[in-house]
Amino acid sequence: MIVKALVEEVRITRTSGSSIKMSNSQQIAQNARKAGNILKTISNEGRSDILYKIHDALKANAHAIEEANKVDLAIAKQTSLADSLLKRLDLFKGDKFDVMLQGVKDVADLEDPVGKVKMARELDDGLTLYQVTAPVGVLLVIFESRPEVIANITALSIKSGNAAILKGGKESVNTFREMAKIVDNTIAKYQSETGVPVGSVQLIETRQDVSDLLNQDEYIDLVVPRGSNALVRKIKDTTKIPVLGHADGICSIYLDEEADLAKAKRISLDAKTNYPAGCNAMETLLINPKLPKWWEVLENLTLKGDVTVHATKGLKTAYFNKLNEHGALTEAIQSKTVDADEKVDFDREFLSLDLAAKFVGSTEEAIQHINTHSSRHTDAIVTEDKVNAEKFMKGVDSSGVYWNASTRFADGFRYGFGAEVGISTSKIHARGPVGLEGLVSYQYQIRGNGQVASDYLGAGGNKAFVHKDLDVKMISL
Amino acid sequence: MIVKALVEEVRITRTSGSSIKMSNSQQIAQNARKAGNILKTISNEGRSDILYKIHDALKANAHAIEEANKVDLAIAKQTSLADSLLKRLDLFKGDKFDVMLQGVKDVADLEDPVGKVKMARELDDGLTLYQVTAPVGVLLVIFESRPEVIANITALSIKSGNAAILKGGKESVNTFREMAKIVDNTIAKYQSETGVPVGSVQLIETRQDVSDLLNQDEYIDLVVPRGSNALVRKIKDTTKIPVLGHADGICSIYLDEEADLAKAKRISLDAKTNYPAGCNAMETLLINPKLPKWWEVLENLTLKGDVTVHATKGLKTAYFNKLNEHGALTEAIQSKTVDADEKVDFDREFLSLDLAAKFVGSTEEAIQHINTHSSRHTDAIVTEDKVNAEKFMKGVDSSGVYWNASTRFADGFRYGFGAEVGISTSKIHARGPVGLEGLVSYQYQIRGNGQVASDYLGAGGNKAFVHKDLDVKMISL
Repeated sequence: MIVKALVEEVRITRTSGSSIKMSNSQQIAQNARKAGNILKTISNEGRSDILYKIHDALKANAHAIEEANKVDLAIAKQTSLADSLLKRLDLFKGDKFDVMLQGVKDVADLEDPVGKVKMARELDDGLTLYQVTAPVGVLLVIFESRPEVIANITALSIKSGNAAILKGGKESVNTFREMAKIVDNTIAKYQSETGVPVGSVQLIETRQDVSDLLNQDEYIDLVVPRGSNALVRKIKDTTKIPVLGHADGICSIYLDEEADLAKAKRISLDAKTNYPAGCNAMETLLINPKLPKWWEVLENLTLKGDVTVHATKGLKTAYFNKLNEHGALTEAIQSKTVDADEKVDFDREFLSLDLAAKFVGSTEEAIQHINTHSSRHTDAIVTEDKVNAEKFMKGVDSSGVYWNASTRFADGFRYGFGAEVGISTSKIHARGPVGLEGLVSYQYQIRGNGQVASDYLGAGGNKAFVHKDLDVKMISL
Repeated sequence: MIVKALVEEVRITRTSGSSIKMSNSQQIAQNARKAGNILKTISNEGRSDILYKIHDALKANAHAIEEANKVDLAIAKQTSLADSLLKRLDLFKGDKFDVMLQGVKDVADLEDPVGKVKMARELDDGLTLYQVTAPVGVLLVIFESRPEVIANITALSIKSGNAAILKGGKESVNTFREMAKIVDNTIAKYQSETGVPVGSVQLIETRQDVSDLLNQDEYIDLVVPRGSNALVRKIKDTTKIPVLGHADGICSIYLDEEADLAKAKRISLDAKTNYPAGCNAMETLLINPKLPKWWEVLENLTLKGDVTVHATKGLKTAYFNKLNEHGALTEAIQSKTVDADEKVDFDREFLSLDLAAKFVGSTEEAIQHINTHSSRHTDAIVTEDKVNAEKFMKGVDSSGVYWNASTRFADGFRYGFGAEVGISTSKIHARGPVGLEGLVSYQYQIRGNGQVASDYLGAGGNKAFVHKDLDVKMISL
């Protein structure tokens, strides 16, 4: 009922998926705002239903999507794109398409992030305050050339009640356009049934559109860039809209003097080598020289992980001396231990089998190094000493602070979020791996029966507030 | 122990409260970051203790503060400042100084907002994830010429573990300088005892400093402007740092066709007249013409509240007709009912005994008007119809959505927050009245015993995650 009436009034211009050029970015942003205002009123059933319909439509139109994908692949081959990029572009490689489809259903089946009562407080008899989760509103999501991401983002946005404006990497433009058309048509077809309005998901195609939209801070509430760090950094530098993302992932591990050596070896090897291109990979290793046999950790990294250690002068000298003492300074080790460029390497995201390493004299020194050089992503301490561990976790100003665990755990799926929107290195709103909860905010509701402020103390009256917290588990609005 | 070691290393330049010109804004911001990194490790006892010491020092130095305040007042009188501003400046008028002192102790006694476990989840045996509240970091707080605010903000910042850079209105500069000196000396005197470092609170004095600091997004995490809307708007337009504040408070009340007339009268009168300069005062009244005797609400506003109604043409005609029918169209009413400038008045914060009024045909139309024109502050529906009320609360995209209660309840003290940092019209991080919780964010902690990602599914291994939520009430870290 609500939905239909509103939908009729707003008359959203249909744009997504078509190759028609938008009149302007403001129109796109306004349409998104209008759609978002409707979407926030749609029940979880409506939002999940449309995702099932989208799943079915994508599945039914697999052939058309594959044809579009072939066009992108053919163009990519002509422009001699790197093999790794070609692999990314190919949506029908292995089970990628099926995994994408399943992902849409998985998000549909997640618990509703909207309308959760987070706090309830009786202000007075018959006057109750509620803090209730609500969609952020309008998202601008910018992502790389992986064609499957468009389905993923569509699902996350709609499930969380947000309108989304999407811009994908240009290499996948034909695939994106085909998929956006299917999404758009499906939303239109079932609009009267599910209530989810056309305009909920809009595709834009040019970089100019992105720059224009980054100025629409009146209509866009959150920018979610997924992709290269350079992209994220550029976006952060050019918009006033809050950005959910991380420009860098410079993660450190500190080996305390009380570290268990076996744990130190395992954790550092995993953190560096499990997926060196990951933002949660270790880039810096801080070693307390009072840790017995500390050099074995470096040896292990190079011999088992093929890691090149960029060591400070002091560390390198001590390392080679120790290996010499044990007759273990091999040519392999020597060639894989290089001089750190101290001005650069501790602020560097290698994204490769390289790391920067240095000595630090204490947990305090480790904390200070990390708070100065890390990107506030995820940092870990390896120690058996609880006092040092607590000191580290309290002192390090990063979204993830770990004790005796690999930084590679910083991931929405590993955290059990069901879906990952991204990883944030912002200090406010959402930090670290972000699930659907990162796409909602909250509203305060007051439900009364005619109360006015002037009856209460502080505003001219004599009544006092009760301020009695209620158990949110007992509340159903 | 931690504290001392860190404090010795950082050697923060003492600046606040002195009239020495800072070398540059970057230095101020860096000092704040360093202080914030220490402050975040200080226990609640340490943070509360220093507030008690500051309370005592301000009390003991009341005479010096009063002398400085007299200088500000004398200068203000020479520049023929308005009487209302002079009243604001006078810190020793009535019990203002004592109330300020009590406020510092009240904040010290609040529950610790830092270190609260908001979520705990077993990822695997011996590998647990915790979401724990942590200070935002560094605040830049800009406020008007009320001298007492500097004590209030100092208390809120330190209690929440944040370093703060403060800039107050220039009319109170001598009072601010004196008080900042006392705060600074007190922090320095007790640094080794409480751990709270010098640099935790820094006073800046010029607008140039503010503009320079608004560029220090690497070191400053949140800007909190308190003061005129023009100020807030200007700051939002000139910084990339997130801003916690509201540029406008355009609050609306919708009188549904099912409204109880007595409630409609009481609520609208309170919302408009209790404190017209408040950001939570009603500026727009939306009337469903199907509400019987709706005109009595307008009559009541003008006759009891001396309110000038800026009515649309349609509303004014209908209003006067109805009053004529009942022989109630007095000269008083006629003079207080003016033509609305429809292009302007519904986007206007009158901050006076004026309001804009129009007819809307339905709850949906009311929602649409509000989502287009309101400032996303607080909006209310008056109705006895639950369906319309729920529709309104779900559809209106504002931080506060009320049913049968005055918009004037939008206030941190009325919400029971103990202290109010400000009212936010942002869509993310903190919305509506913001208590100490608005000055904290969170960090994820993982506590393990050597686990690595490569042992688990998705990263090369075979182990599955458990993902078992734990009761946070049972957790003490």
